[in-house]
Amino acid sequence: MHHPRPPAPLRRLCATLCVSSLAAAAFGAHAAAAPAPAAAPEAVAAQLRDAALAGHDIAYQWVSELTSRFGPRPAGSVNEQQAAEWAAARFKELGFENVHIESFPVTAWVRGAESAQITSPLAQPLVAAALGESPPTPAAGVEGEVVTFASLDALKAAPPGSLSGKIAMVAGRMVRTQDGAGYGVAVDARVDGAGEAAQRGAIAFLLRSVGTDSHRLAHTGTTRYVDGRVPVPAFALSNPDADQIARLAALGEKVRVRLYSSASYVKDAHSQNVIADVRGRARPQEVVLLGAHLDSWDQGTGAVDDGTGMAIITAAAALIRDAPQRPRRTVRVVLFGSEEIAQPVAPYGAFGGHAYADNHKAELATHVLVGESDFGADRVYRLGLPQAVLQGEFAKTALRVLAPIGVLAATQAAQHVGTDVGPTVEAGVPEFALNQDGSGYFDIHHTADDTLDKIDQEQLEQNVAAWAALAWLAADSDVDFRTHGAPPPPQP
Amino acid sequence: MHHPRPPAPLRRLCATLCVSSLAAAAFGAHAAAAPAPAAAPEAVAAQLRDAALAGHDIAYQWVSELTSRFGPRPAGSVNEQQAAEWAAARFKELGFENVHIESFPVTAWVRGAESAQITSPLAQPLVAAALGESPPTPAAGVEGEVVTFASLDALKAAPPGSLSGKIAMVAGRMVRTQDGAGYGVAVDARVDGAGEAAQRGAIAFLLRSVGTDSHRLAHTGTTRYVDGRVPVPAFALSNPDADQIARLAALGEKVRVRLYSSASYVKDAHSQNVIADVRGRARPQEVVLLGAHLDSWDQGTGAVDDGTGMAIITAAAALIRDAPQRPRRTVRVVLFGSEEIAQPVAPYGAFGGHAYADNHKAELATHVLVGESDFGADRVYRLGLPQAVLQGEFAKTALRVLAPIGVLAATQAAQHVGTDVGPTVEAGVPEFALNQDGSGYFDIHHTADDTLDKIDQEQLEQNVAAWAALAWLAADSDVDFRTHGAPPPPQP
Repeated sequence: MHHPRPPAPLRRLCATLCVSSLAAAAFGAHAAAAPAPAAAPEAVAAQLRDAALAGHDIAYQWVSELTSRFGPRPAGSVNEQQAAEWAAARFKELGFENVHIESFPVTAWVRGAESAQITSPLAQPLVAAALGESPPTPAAGVEGEVVTFASLDALKAAPPGSLSGKIAMVAGRMVRTQDGAGYGVAVDARVDGAGEAAQRGAIAFLLRSVGTDSHRLAHTGTTRYVDGRVPVPAFALSNPDADQIARLAALGEKVRVRLYSSASYVKDAHSQNVIADVRGRARPQEVVLLGAHLDSWDQGTGAVDDGTGMAIITAAAALIRDAPQRPRRTVRVVLFGSEEIAQPVAPYGAFGGHAYADNHKAELATHVLVGESDFGADRVYRLGLPQAVLQGEFAKTALRVLAPIGVLAATQAAQHVGTDVGPTVEAGVPEFALNQDGSGYFDIHHTADDTLDKIDQEQLEQNVAAWAALAWLAADSDVDFRTHGAPPPPQP
Repeated sequence: MHHPRPPAPLRRLCATLCVSSLAAAAFGAHAAAAPAPAAAPEAVAAQLRDAALAGHDIAYQWVSELTSRFGPRPAGSVNEQQAAEWAAARFKELGFENVHIESFPVTAWVRGAESAQITSPLAQPLVAAALGESPPTPAAGVEGEVVTFASLDALKAAPPGSLSGKIAMVAGRMVRTQDGAGYGVAVDARVDGAGEAAQRGAIAFLLRSVGTDSHRLAHTGTTRYVDGRVPVPAFALSNPDADQIARLAALGEKVRVRLYSSASYVKDAHSQNVIADVRGRARPQEVVLLGAHLDSWDQGTGAVDDGTGMAIITAAAALIRDAPQRPRRTVRVVLFGSEEIAQPVAPYGAFGGHAYADNHKAELATHVLVGESDFGADRVYRLGLPQAVLQGEFAKTALRVLAPIGVLAATQAAQHVGTDVGPTVEAGVPEFALNQDGSGYFDIHHTADDTLDKIDQEQLEQNVAAWAALAWLAADSDVDFRTHGAPPPPQP
């Protein structure tokens, strides 16, 4: 199916940044006409970029309908499954090939009713959220004095037994950064806090939310199973609630807290990856893989984590699908299931990513490049490439196309570009990154506030522009991203 | 007890706005020394203004300790009562006179457990909060199809019986304004929606939050008793949740929702007003009354509604108390109880305000001027005065003192300056307003987000400066604000 684009007013971002806004309209006309003589790859990439900024609203429509119809999509839930079926149907409507769903078993985790209160010195409600995989409390809740640590390391320094009957709390505050570095530092306490607290006798674990906002919304997120179980109930507190406990302590008060959760597990659930290709014209077995994840945390509707990632890669692939000529290689979109939650058995996390790498093991040798969009909806500001092509012609071409929309070159090779594509990268596939501005991402991440209204459509479309252009350039080239960056001599 | 101020670095606001920053340090020195020859009232007002901006942190400390120790202070609760006792003790420490608590009976309303979900077309959680005085649902909740109206008027136009078995929803969006005009328009649906919905057969009432934010936090607030009861359960939805229901409807779906609440009433509760005076040196029976309210909604800690109001008037009175000379008239601070909730019996609302006007009926003839601070913590931008003094010397003097901190003259007489002082104004006492910038107030108002971290200390202190200066000028004058603005001839 073919989708000529209607003329549309250029948006503000484009007016500021586009080098070739007229090309966008021209490109729309080309798409509907008989095949023209093939344009140079760089020119097509620029046309794709400009088309994305010129009223191409597949991305916003995707994430709007997905988050409205299916709401939260916890791994293993009916909502995740129905969203996967909807996505597959939409891929077919967009004219993609090889559209199919690949299922795999998971242990799901289901948030129940939950509550938290300060019980002493005076009753006050707290805003808290059970961390992922956290076991339920007894029906009466757990109650104890709060013992606060500035960091996970400080908790680890507490002697064995010293937290007996207490609720251990790590209260360190996440640092706001553009590249997410603050998350990496803070998240260890979320992952390992419950286990470390339990080892020292604590009856529950509390965490200042790993987040940069100051709203009464707690940031959930995964914990680590230890010997097949999360050893004590674990909750995140909103930042203002963590402040409140700190102020009461500073006033000389002993603070007691009661926590309640009826969370549960579903051991025989399943999740799934959704796969769709824009088949290459010359070397279809060679794959440029664009990834994002379909599951979300349960409090919000997974709009920026990771509805926008799916929307960006889908819209980018749709633009390439609608170009006058297919790229030489295949562009594959994979919507991974079960990214957010941990599992009680190996490989413990990234079940969708592992399922893909296992199911497609034989094809990975001809996967030429892989990237993932999983850092919200804000603008791309940096291109990271594999070491082999950091300095070559490919990088120069890509930056000529991306610089006009505000993308700089990373000075180091792309690394750890996404959880889902991690197992594929470990199998030897080179990775690229289109780094997004994450300055505001952790205001919303893993909270109830992760909803459609938080998306800036203009920045979303800048992402589509960058992904469409980069994916096209990689897919229409013969560059071997594993070994060298020099393209082969031009074909006659 | 006397509180000399330590020298403190002038804050940024002062550096930008103050005309007489050196006067602040000078005033601190005066306060600790033997009485100097009485300065002209205008000069003292300017000194008070500047002292408030020069590191006088009573206001912030007040609201910090109050909201930390007592958290939410629902009318009739133990938290409200304990906060009143704490406030009275602090007033005594500050050297105020006539400090006492006046109790009155109220029917309290207690939020219980509550939840809301979309049940069809696919289960999704909603963020909702029962509106004040809303009755509980049955234990299994109430469930029905949502019928959406753009406004209360549209709901009122629905025929009798047309909402039988349905959940009526008013989805109009509050308009952001500086002066709160958007609230006045939107709040009618919160007050009367449940009654109007019930009249047409609805089993529950849903309201798009009366608020200007886009967070997953619902704005509660009072409803109206009809014949002694709120006729159906009533809930506010967060703005993103109201959007979600609208989008599902736009996709052609019938949306069903289930609502649950275990709210309850306490018929024999009591609330209280806290009163404290800075006794006038010449005409102590003449009172300039500064009001704010002590109770708060239960989701947040009542930091900006109305912890800051209390903090502002308390700090302003404390500055006047510490001035080298008492004003001629008494400055009275009243912290009203039970402002937020409605009552099932007459006078239905403003129970603290009515209790004060009733208890002090005989004194109201010598209450010369009254104001209330109940619009958050952001800067004062406008002075409103009674009609009689709009054009006189008093207004000119006040504006000379207030203009340097960014306060303009209102062109019309002050009206409806506060719920609590309403009954006192109805009894004939002239009112003034120091209007605050409310542009962001309804992002927070009546939500869980009403916490200390939302207060901008610099703007808070500008409020203290304005209240201290204005209250001083009114209290140190002989102006009759009821009849004319001309001050009597200077006393020898």
